[in-house]
Amino acid sequence: MAKGISNAVIRRLPRYYRYLDELLERGVDRISSGDLSNAMHITASQIRQDLNNFGGFGQQGYGYNVQYLHDEIGKILGLDHTHNIIVIGMGNLGQAISRYMHFDNLGFKMVGFFDVNPDLKGKMIRDIPVSMMDELPEFVKTHQVDIAALTLPRANATQAAEMVIDLGIKSIWNFALVDLDVPEDVTVQNVHLSDSLMQLSYNIMQKK
Amino acid sequence: MAKGISNAVIRRLPRYYRYLDELLERGVDRISSGDLSNAMHITASQIRQDLNNFGGFGQQGYGYNVQYLHDEIGKILGLDHTHNIIVIGMGNLGQAISRYMHFDNLGFKMVGFFDVNPDLKGKMIRDIPVSMMDELPEFVKTHQVDIAALTLPRANATQAAEMVIDLGIKSIWNFALVDLDVPEDVTVQNVHLSDSLMQLSYNIMQKK
Repeated sequence: MAKGISNAVIRRLPRYYRYLDELLERGVDRISSGDLSNAMHITASQIRQDLNNFGGFGQQGYGYNVQYLHDEIGKILGLDHTHNIIVIGMGNLGQAISRYMHFDNLGFKMVGFFDVNPDLKGKMIRDIPVSMMDELPEFVKTHQVDIAALTLPRANATQAAEMVIDLGIKSIWNFALVDLDVPEDVTVQNVHLSDSLMQLSYNIMQKK
Repeated sequence: MAKGISNAVIRRLPRYYRYLDELLERGVDRISSGDLSNAMHITASQIRQDLNNFGGFGQQGYGYNVQYLHDEIGKILGLDHTHNIIVIGMGNLGQAISRYMHFDNLGFKMVGFFDVNPDLKGKMIRDIPVSMMDELPEFVKTHQVDIAALTLPRANATQAAEMVIDLGIKSIWNFALVDLDVPEDVTVQNVHLSDSLMQLSYNIMQKK
């Protein structure tokens, strides 16, 4: 497998995948590197460079076979596997994430929902009842869990992260406003919504 | 104001701000560059370099005054201004974003909520009734709107973006799974949740 790929490339891969998915929906079989470049606002040489990290997928004079490139990038992204997700923190954001159907199409499967609030116990989301946090250890013993999404306040996120790591879950999708300290074999992907708003605000100020 | 600052620096600024905010909450007055570096997992020289883009803020042998650095980074990020936000698309995600109280602390103020679904008309969120999209032009005439958050399906997002741009809104916080084509004077900040999941999945595969 590819090693030492830069974060910038890894951030672009989902965009390629998404765009190729759109092309497939529209029934497009192949695309020239020039057209791909124009549509994605990435130079053709950057695209070639990005894809060469994984062995390249184009053919001189033919361009890219959309289905093939789509599937190959999907494999690089691990989308040919199913990833089981639990969501911890069933507030507004947690419930929104839990109900987001598009993730299913990508092989991400919501398998459990957890909170500490007893009012939420048994509430049905996608035909799965919300469980209490103290049920998590038993749940993990009986279910394959690949990813824990943390959608809870900063104050509780660190503790929840420690718990899921202790239980052997190796991947955290972190929405809490805290940068988690985790062992090296644990992968964290952050979605800090307010960081994103602050970046937007920065860019607004620059344009003024 | 600072020009030509790299995206990597701009992505780190909210993290600095967030961490300094935490320090203030804990009553910490000043911090050495070494301690800041350890806590944030950024080298001291990187921190110096980042902050030097804006004139630097440390004092040799004293470190950083937390309140001062916090406020200065806040100003760089434009957080000394109020930004009025409307949210378009009152599905689960839209409602979660609309209700997220933390944004208030950063000067982002939710001022209007829009959807096309008549069932949602008048539904109260934060004491503001949900309006229909055809009320947006009138709303923009009578309210200052700085940012439009788009939390709607890909198919509707492009059209909604065109509408808000036509109405003179210059900043879009885009959650829809589409890369928007916008005029140069319009700023877009994307939050592509499934891109983020795909990056996580990529990193999971690399560790296997």
